[in-house]
Amino acid sequence: MPHYVVGHKIPDSDSICSAIALSYLKTTLGEETVPARLGELSPETLFILDKFGFEQPELKMSYAGESLYVVDHSERTQAPDDIDEATILGIIDHHKLGDLTTSTPLECWIRPVGCTNTIIKMMYDFHNVEIPKNIAGAMMCAILSDTVIFKSPTCTTADIKCVEALAEIAGIDDAEALGMEMFKVKSAVEGTPARDLVLRDFKDFDMNGNLVGIGQLEVIDLAIFDDIKADLEADIAKLKAEGNRHSVLLLLTDIMKEGSEMLVVSDNADLTEKAYGKATVDGKVWLDGVLSRKKQVVPPLQESFS
Amino acid sequence: MPHYVVGHKIPDSDSICSAIALSYLKTTLGEETVPARLGELSPETLFILDKFGFEQPELKMSYAGESLYVVDHSERTQAPDDIDEATILGIIDHHKLGDLTTSTPLECWIRPVGCTNTIIKMMYDFHNVEIPKNIAGAMMCAILSDTVIFKSPTCTTADIKCVEALAEIAGIDDAEALGMEMFKVKSAVEGTPARDLVLRDFKDFDMNGNLVGIGQLEVIDLAIFDDIKADLEADIAKLKAEGNRHSVLLLLTDIMKEGSEMLVVSDNADLTEKAYGKATVDGKVWLDGVLSRKKQVVPPLQESFS
Repeated sequence: MPHYVVGHKIPDSDSICSAIALSYLKTTLGEETVPARLGELSPETLFILDKFGFEQPELKMSYAGESLYVVDHSERTQAPDDIDEATILGIIDHHKLGDLTTSTPLECWIRPVGCTNTIIKMMYDFHNVEIPKNIAGAMMCAILSDTVIFKSPTCTTADIKCVEALAEIAGIDDAEALGMEMFKVKSAVEGTPARDLVLRDFKDFDMNGNLVGIGQLEVIDLAIFDDIKADLEADIAKLKAEGNRHSVLLLLTDIMKEGSEMLVVSDNADLTEKAYGKATVDGKVWLDGVLSRKKQVVPPLQESFS
Repeated sequence: MPHYVVGHKIPDSDSICSAIALSYLKTTLGEETVPARLGELSPETLFILDKFGFEQPELKMSYAGESLYVVDHSERTQAPDDIDEATILGIIDHHKLGDLTTSTPLECWIRPVGCTNTIIKMMYDFHNVEIPKNIAGAMMCAILSDTVIFKSPTCTTADIKCVEALAEIAGIDDAEALGMEMFKVKSAVEGTPARDLVLRDFKDFDMNGNLVGIGQLEVIDLAIFDDIKADLEADIAKLKAEGNRHSVLLLLTDIMKEGSEMLVVSDNADLTEKAYGKATVDGKVWLDGVLSRKKQVVPPLQESFS
């Protein structure tokens, strides 16, 4: 029975590319391991898989009785629903430490860097395993995505060096140009239903007993949302009610202007005032310089709930 | 303000030596870091510190407002009481993943090996920092202690290789002989009050909402306990009542016979029957081949509570 590598629900490029990269490493080390996914892929991730010639990992929601590696999170709310009936062999992640626990010793590589794939590169180096060209390309794109082409405050020198090394292996001359191409794919929202956009990169967090959902759409120009913002606002209100959530936030991130408009529905009228020192007006607030959910949005919010 | 490195409550040699080794590494890397301890040291640990010329780390119970690295565990019950008011910068550990969480990204080096110091050696290698002779000696002793001189089922080839490398650095010809000397110090129980013995290496676990305390005394010959076993049994019964614990178990481990007599007080009369397939008779049960609390005692018990 093979082991699995699986990222978070509503998989992003880092979750998928790190599952592919880690399963190749583990299999090479003699442990048959396959990548899996907990949901449908975004246009950006499909672009990466297509570019480097990968199939979509197997869609697999249930892991009872299986052994798996968890990548790109360590949170129950983002993990398979039956993870308590599975054996977690390891966690590779770059977020805050979540509430997953195990009953046996395991392998955790968690680092405060911009992307899980930067850590997986360290694992390849540690085990002295050569990274295949196409895997290097996919890993590189995941890092460019997570670090918003190095603009995000989560980006570290380790991420930048890692992209340089992976570009060399993959034979890519201009990594940043490929990053822009990728973000153009990501910016295409036309014709996509509001719910699909809201859930494209959406994570639930347990904040002191309150369920808070935070979505993010990163685009090259916020004007793209002019015609559909009302639909998005209506949809996050629905999503809040459907999931009994305390709040749903949707970040519309302009990667060129380097800031985010946050759409807010919440049981606390002063949620953003308390967390970010800026009041929500008419269900919206502009957060200048905010690009990173994990570094700039989640910690102050978590703090405001404690 | 320096950062701290602290192990678990009722510190053992691994918690203390890894705090010393990690704080030297971090300080060398430019981050002023000092080792600390959450309690009194055992004769074995004092022997190691004396042998390699270290002072006892600072006794420090409160960490509110401080930043710290947690070593040798990831459990709330074993951490400083006010850890929620501190910033956890990282966790270096070789046990199951516990219930500590953070609100910001961190550094976790967790591996299924025999000792935290084996992982810290990997960190020195990763950062290409030379280990001072005396720190290498202390790290080596911690590994010999945690792996019961390589006899424990938790011992991996990584631990054995690490001891070889550290012995070379420390200039120690016969690591195993030093290990036996250390276990002789550990075996000296005469004249020590029962409570001190019970708490010498004692850990509380939250098992599905039940508080379970598990102590362990590793000796060269169980006959050493003949005269004091009744006192130990009376004391763990007291300890159970004082702490509102569901169970208290005390492992009397014979490292030469390679097995443990478990003294049991529990709200479940069939606790050991359910967890280990062997009934407790007159408050005791012999578990052949059982040397490791973390690998052989905790997981089946945790399972039996779920």
